[in-house]
Amino acid sequence: MLTTNPFDDDHLREECGVFGIHGHAEAAALVALGLHALQHRGQEAAGIVSYDGEHFHNHRDLGHVEDCFGNEAVIRKLKGNNAIGHVRYSTTGETLLRNVQPLFAEMEFGGLALAHNGNLTNAAALRRQLVKRGCLFQSTTDTEVIVHLIAISLYSTVEDRLIDALRQIEGAYSLVCLTKNGLVGVRDPLGIRPLVIGKLGSCWVLASETCALDIIGAEFVRDVEPGEIVIITDEGIRSLKPFGGRTSRFCIFEYIYFARPDSIMEGTSVYDARKRIGAQLARESGIAADVIVPVPDSGVPAAIGFATESGIPFELGIIRNHYVGRTFIQPTDRTRHAGVKMKHNPNRAIIAGKRVVLVDDSIVRGTTSRKIVELVRQAGATEVHMRISSPPTSFPCYFGIDTPERDKLLAARYDVEGMAKLIGVDSLAFISIDGLYKAVGDDARNNGAPQYCDACFTGDYPVEPTDYMDKEEA
Amino acid sequence: MLTTNPFDDDHLREECGVFGIHGHAEAAALVALGLHALQHRGQEAAGIVSYDGEHFHNHRDLGHVEDCFGNEAVIRKLKGNNAIGHVRYSTTGETLLRNVQPLFAEMEFGGLALAHNGNLTNAAALRRQLVKRGCLFQSTTDTEVIVHLIAISLYSTVEDRLIDALRQIEGAYSLVCLTKNGLVGVRDPLGIRPLVIGKLGSCWVLASETCALDIIGAEFVRDVEPGEIVIITDEGIRSLKPFGGRTSRFCIFEYIYFARPDSIMEGTSVYDARKRIGAQLARESGIAADVIVPVPDSGVPAAIGFATESGIPFELGIIRNHYVGRTFIQPTDRTRHAGVKMKHNPNRAIIAGKRVVLVDDSIVRGTTSRKIVELVRQAGATEVHMRISSPPTSFPCYFGIDTPERDKLLAARYDVEGMAKLIGVDSLAFISIDGLYKAVGDDARNNGAPQYCDACFTGDYPVEPTDYMDKEEA
Amino acid sequence: MLTTNPFDDDHLREECGVFGIHGHAEAAALVALGLHALQHRGQEAAGIVSYDGEHFHNHRDLGHVEDCFGNEAVIRKLKGNNAIGHVRYSTTGETLLRNVQPLFAEMEFGGLALAHNGNLTNAAALRRQLVKRGCLFQSTTDTEVIVHLIAISLYSTVEDRLIDALRQIEGAYSLVCLTKNGLVGVRDPLGIRPLVIGKLGSCWVLASETCALDIIGAEFVRDVEPGEIVIITDEGIRSLKPFGGRTSRFCIFEYIYFARPDSIMEGTSVYDARKRIGAQLARESGIAADVIVPVPDSGVPAAIGFATESGIPFELGIIRNHYVGRTFIQPTDRTRHAGVKMKHNPNRAIIAGKRVVLVDDSIVRGTTSRKIVELVRQAGATEVHMRISSPPTSFPCYFGIDTPERDKLLAARYDVEGMAKLIGVDSLAFISIDGLYKAVGDDARNNGAPQYCDACFTGDYPVEPTDYMDKEEA
Amino acid sequence: MLTTNPFDDDHLREECGVFGIHGHAEAAALVALGLHALQHRGQEAAGIVSYDGEHFHNHRDLGHVEDCFGNEAVIRKLKGNNAIGHVRYSTTGETLLRNVQPLFAEMEFGGLALAHNGNLTNAAALRRQLVKRGCLFQSTTDTEVIVHLIAISLYSTVEDRLIDALRQIEGAYSLVCLTKNGLVGVRDPLGIRPLVIGKLGSCWVLASETCALDIIGAEFVRDVEPGEIVIITDEGIRSLKPFGGRTSRFCIFEYIYFARPDSIMEGTSVYDARKRIGAQLARESGIAADVIVPVPDSGVPAAIGFATESGIPFELGIIRNHYVGRTFIQPTDRTRHAGVKMKHNPNRAIIAGKRVVLVDDSIVRGTTSRKIVELVRQAGATEVHMRISSPPTSFPCYFGIDTPERDKLLAARYDVEGMAKLIGVDSLAFISIDGLYKAVGDDARNNGAPQYCDACFTGDYPVEPTDYMDKEEA
Repeated sequence: MLTTNPFDDDHLREECGVFGIHGHAEAAALVALGLHALQHRGQEAAGIVSYDGEHFHNHRDLGHVEDCFGNEAVIRKLKGNNAIGHVRYSTTGETLLRNVQPLFAEMEFGGLALAHNGNLTNAAALRRQLVKRGCLFQSTTDTEVIVHLIAISLYSTVEDRLIDALRQIEGAYSLVCLTKNGLVGVRDPLGIRPLVIGKLGSCWVLASETCALDIIGAEFVRDVEPGEIVIITDEGIRSLKPFGGRTSRFCIFEYIYFARPDSIMEGTSVYDARKRIGAQLARESGIAADVIVPVPDSGVPAAIGFATESGIPFELGIIRNHYVGRTFIQPTDRTRHAGVKMKHNPNRAIIAGKRVVLVDDSIVRGTTSRKIVELVRQAGATEVHMRISSPPTSFPCYFGIDTPERDKLLAARYDVEGMAKLIGVDSLAFISIDGLYKAVGDDARNNGAPQYCDACFTGDYPVEPTDYMDKEEA
Repeated sequence: MLTTNPFDDDHLREECGVFGIHGHAEAAALVALGLHALQHRGQEAAGIVSYDGEHFHNHRDLGHVEDCFGNEAVIRKLKGNNAIGHVRYSTTGETLLRNVQPLFAEMEFGGLALAHNGNLTNAAALRRQLVKRGCLFQSTTDTEVIVHLIAISLYSTVEDRLIDALRQIEGAYSLVCLTKNGLVGVRDPLGIRPLVIGKLGSCWVLASETCALDIIGAEFVRDVEPGEIVIITDEGIRSLKPFGGRTSRFCIFEYIYFARPDSIMEGTSVYDARKRIGAQLARESGIAADVIVPVPDSGVPAAIGFATESGIPFELGIIRNHYVGRTFIQPTDRTRHAGVKMKHNPNRAIIAGKRVVLVDDSIVRGTTSRKIVELVRQAGATEVHMRISSPPTSFPCYFGIDTPERDKLLAARYDVEGMAKLIGVDSLAFISIDGLYKAVGDDARNNGAPQYCDACFTGDYPVEPTDYMDKEEA
Repeated sequence: MLTTNPFDDDHLREECGVFGIHGHAEAAALVALGLHALQHRGQEAAGIVSYDGEHFHNHRDLGHVEDCFGNEAVIRKLKGNNAIGHVRYSTTGETLLRNVQPLFAEMEFGGLALAHNGNLTNAAALRRQLVKRGCLFQSTTDTEVIVHLIAISLYSTVEDRLIDALRQIEGAYSLVCLTKNGLVGVRDPLGIRPLVIGKLGSCWVLASETCALDIIGAEFVRDVEPGEIVIITDEGIRSLKPFGGRTSRFCIFEYIYFARPDSIMEGTSVYDARKRIGAQLARESGIAADVIVPVPDSGVPAAIGFATESGIPFELGIIRNHYVGRTFIQPTDRTRHAGVKMKHNPNRAIIAGKRVVLVDDSIVRGTTSRKIVELVRQAGATEVHMRISSPPTSFPCYFGIDTPERDKLLAARYDVEGMAKLIGVDSLAFISIDGLYKAVGDDARNNGAPQYCDACFTGDYPVEPTDYMDKEEA
Repeated sequence: MLTTNPFDDDHLREECGVFGIHGHAEAAALVALGLHALQHRGQEAAGIVSYDGEHFHNHRDLGHVEDCFGNEAVIRKLKGNNAIGHVRYSTTGETLLRNVQPLFAEMEFGGLALAHNGNLTNAAALRRQLVKRGCLFQSTTDTEVIVHLIAISLYSTVEDRLIDALRQIEGAYSLVCLTKNGLVGVRDPLGIRPLVIGKLGSCWVLASETCALDIIGAEFVRDVEPGEIVIITDEGIRSLKPFGGRTSRFCIFEYIYFARPDSIMEGTSVYDARKRIGAQLARESGIAADVIVPVPDSGVPAAIGFATESGIPFELGIIRNHYVGRTFIQPTDRTRHAGVKMKHNPNRAIIAGKRVVLVDDSIVRGTTSRKIVELVRQAGATEVHMRISSPPTSFPCYFGIDTPERDKLLAARYDVEGMAKLIGVDSLAFISIDGLYKAVGDDARNNGAPQYCDACFTGDYPVEPTDYMDKEEA
């Protein structure tokens, strides 16, 4: 019911976005704006916690940011100059209000609010230990493990307790915390998920992406580094690196699909990266055709890159209905294809009698792709070729991305030819893994020490996914 | 609160879309799909009336089609094989449930439901006469005048009563009616607003645009002709032309902005028309630049046409946040530009250091244009030029389009140079009126007998707007 | 779902209450209070229309008065010094918002709002004629007939048009109208339903019962007379009697059950009347017993009268749960009696081992009575006698009271002995018709010219129920 | 907004009611019925937790029982044969969903649900210790302390952990717990709050009052004894008394006002007790008068007892409007007395010209009493005397009753004469403390070892209220 991602239903989904601001008179309103700019990272729920120097204020709700925070009265109640927020997409089970972040707890030293983008890979094991000790969990989130670890830490300062907790957790995490002292930003030692620092006048800002700085007019300062803890108080910003140096393994899929095209990640424009990926794809798998048609909306930059490189015209051959998220009418026999048609309509004038290259960013289950290809053929295309701006997605992600179980991933079950047949295209090609690395600025993948996390393509997980190892085997 | 048009807040707005189907077991569900495809023609309210051979069923609500009809229980209650529907955007006052169409009335001969796209220009005068006679109005719509005229007609058949009513009304109207005999479709003598006939198996369909046929898999048969009445019963389809022949004056703005790009109108692809308009604009007002950037989303086809004709690269230099309709947080001093930024973010990587041509379809008040230009400059553009794919909008429309009062229309107050200055661009150009006619397939405007209604550009109204004449003078 | 009458589910129900006030700065708030005091006359919907000297304001909603008007913002929107209101219980079909009164219409002479307590007996016939003429009905109420008759009247003043309309209608009606000139109150020629005049400072008030005057602190002036029209304007109050003199036939059931015990009707205290009815009942059908137990809450005054007259102690032998209206959990096999138990619990300490006289005001279907008797026996009563403070209800009411069809009325199907057996009591007695007349102040019923409408007991209808005659026969 | 207690706004309020059933196929539906019968013990929120042998199911909501559980779908989701429930009235702060009971926690041994009637007097101290240890609290309730104490207990069985927790808490508590083993019922060592055992067929039931057994047709077995733990499993019922023997100090106010009149408490009918209190009051403070009038609805049984003893007629001299809970319209100057009039209207026919004795159960702040006396005088009473069926309420309760702070208690600030003057009566009398003890079955209060908790009258607290001692001094 709440799968309102307007981009597509057959995509991997980022599970969260985080945002925080320190020292601004309109902190909560700015967090709401920031979360709105990060809405693509999580559409099921949103929350904000603020601190006014005396009390913490909390509002969390299911729905889009504007549903949760569009009401001025809600914003007014979130008093204080410091605030953090979170948008969420949940992988499993029902979306429960008590799972909505930021989580908040009263501890001995005072209140602590925590917003988390990523996923811990040893949360289940830690949770079992904590429950044994008598800790009562309020939510079913992995994030709450961090909260309890901080609560039971024997250290006295928040920072020491936080570091104590971080030493015990594994996986991917970009955290934004709010305490009575200020804000804390944390990125896991491999920097798998993004987190950036910005500045609005004299106020420090933390955000998952730079597009969330743009919306409030903040300037981008730098990425939080892998393994870095930044502490923002009235005295300014400090940096801790308690885990020493390790290589970055940033999620390469952020460039392909998750991030907004107008964000700058690790120094690279996402839009530019996508165009370069499209151009590389055209070089690798060019084909004679009449039009390059993006699968809207995420395929557009790669399609522009592909069209420019190939010299074949770029056209909006599929029109997206901007009013839809959900499939709202259960199609019966006679209205079977309404689902995909509610979102996409082939632009017959462009497609009829043409050899069409469809450019999309990924194939997950392949269900939508097959329907789109069918629509394009019905609209009169003489040939339909598909080009994908990522390598085949063959492995689940355990680092904060919602992936179906392995046997639902089309690329885990078929080779490219098999996939082409199932989807019904005349040809199908994916960008190569080295081509992808080249497009994002490296020469090629360094197989001994990969520059990115690309486990969904290669199965090469940068952290052992403890909690999931039995599950997959069973 | 419900101004959820995702395309833009500074556009003229189509006020309505209509849809009807005869003889289908899932009539109401198909009407809901059809209305969904016509959602761009009206976002404030939607309604469906069905007839099951015995009773009429009625559901009308405020909100988008999926809000109103996304619930299966609602669809199930709309029993019967014949149904019509309506989407609405209202110009003035609050949106009242009793104004939501289809209007329905029990008359001597049985029930009548009526859905109307367009606007009558003598409704106020007729209403005064009807009230004097003792007619009680339920709504504040012009459409209800037609219902009362049918109710009091001395003719006995529905058709004769309808023709009797039509003879008294003036203005623009594409009507879809439902009676116990079947469906009736009507287009005003000048064919100002669109209405097409489609077929799904053996079932006849009426719709404002062909994209609504596509969504249910119906094939396009033909446009209803200006002044034509089509009567659809179990016996098939009949055509009446009680008003004799008059020249068509189809609304040229449907090509520029109102219609969906994947619709075919009067034999012409809207997408193709927009690309040709963009190309013509490039020929008329080309300029040296580095990138062609559409103002999303409506400016895209014209920008592609402009880019192709000019040879300058097409780029998504402004990224649209697809999650917004409404401005949800009241910006205060420090968050002043949040409104436009909630929808648009300049893609700095594309824009910084570039000479940018922004392509948009129209300028109404100019408020959004000015803000977008400012954002583009802040993102580092060295020059900003604006090209508009319509002539200056200088006159209000009285035929079913929401236009601000004349003194709010930027083009009614300033010449092009003045507008350029206000908007803050280095240069501004509009397509010429003859260029526009050429792009949609004519040689030029026939000033003696114009082929289209273009009153919003020329002030040349094809029907005298009786009700409005005093108002404008006063 | 909305049958929230807390008194009982097996009662006849008054269908409406009306209230109006002229010339008070807080008119709408006072109407809301008045309607609240009249809530027992209609629990399904409520509405208020106010006039501020320029515009009419209207709010109607489903639910109790406090649900509809508990919100200050709603009251604030109902501007103006003159206002009228209505509470409604509807007999048939679903409760539709468009049926909620006051009805409002814009006519040639301006707006007219109308609130009606009662029921017209020739509405269906009139409606057919009006529809034939081309009148469009918005509601399914009999009341709308009056509105159309006023609209099409050829007279020019509102008053003349109203009289013109009244001459054509038959049945029971207490009306309160609001026009730009002021308020109008009307009572039908037989004065079947109540309507009183009150005064609050210099402001005139109209209300169904005096308890609605009490709540706003207004003093009672007099009853509106049968066939009287009172016209309240800034100039004061005027009285018209266009229909000449006819005998009053006030509804005797108002004394038995409908009216609130603290109201004064036609000069008689309802509470006193009920006690006298109970005393008369004790004289007519006394019996040896240990306790007199009222069926809560409506049986209490008659039970006090019965106890005092008989010298047997009055005790709360059945405890009512004040938190219920609706039966909220569908009882299954094992929880079958939960329905009645959710409302009533026998007070075992009072009942066990006792001879119990239950006093109730009427028996309609008898369903609740049977269950209550069973509960009382289970609680250990050695004998259970039932005494009813009205004669057997054997005929339907057509004058604004919701009665089941005749074959659902227990008294229409069984004699007293048969009823006693079905209900499971050791003895059953009803007050005699002459005893009832005596208790309300007459010597006996004047069978040639009855002093009250008692058709539900006698079948002697004071007006021929035109619309219903075929129905009953069929 | 949710203070919907229909009895009165100027009463002490019971804060909670509990209910549980074991081994019934419709457990949740029966709990909902039981809670409905206990609605007078808490009107702000309700919750049910069920266990189906595998999973716990949980539904908690704000509002009345029928609002929370009137929906069949909600009941269906609460699967399983064992279930417990809770109704709540909260003393301070806003009513938060997370405070609604039963509280539920997953512990090492499995799930535990807990419903609590009463109030702990050392919860704040315990909470501070637990937070220091790293326990995170979800609610602001005292009850959660018990949950954490169970969670961290080093014992292994639920029972031992529960006893371990009980040894640490002080105050008043009647608890109903649900675990995968079955139900547990607990009453504090002094038995301050009630808890009874019932049986429905072979199923054991726990409830705050016997009226909740009646509604489901269960028979009353016995009271849980002070300090007793009853354990209900598939094997039957067991009793533990880990705290040895102590004298009972049952809350005497349950007889006066809190309990429903049809409940049997500690072997005594509440209705009978109230009548005896009224009779004793008549003996102690009789006065020459014309009518005995109860302040509805809670004053009725005492008024009957008073009337019978004194020989003065009992009359409903004040009529209650059963449709109100909340004061819904903010009275302004001219509608000032609307608040009390919305609930009570003097029955002028009974009161005018009479010497009236008003019987009420208690005076807390005195605000309502004063208004009622004023209304009764305005209605024409020649004398107004007030008789109260409890001693003066001079001290706050710390055992689960909502009392205002001491300086808001009228009896803490004035002597009887002063109170009479403030309230505006000709005479005022309260029952004596010994008279009260006599009426409930003792000879007199044993001042050395009082038979009841009567601290609100005497200040003699049976348990030292640790948490509150500083507060009161400060």
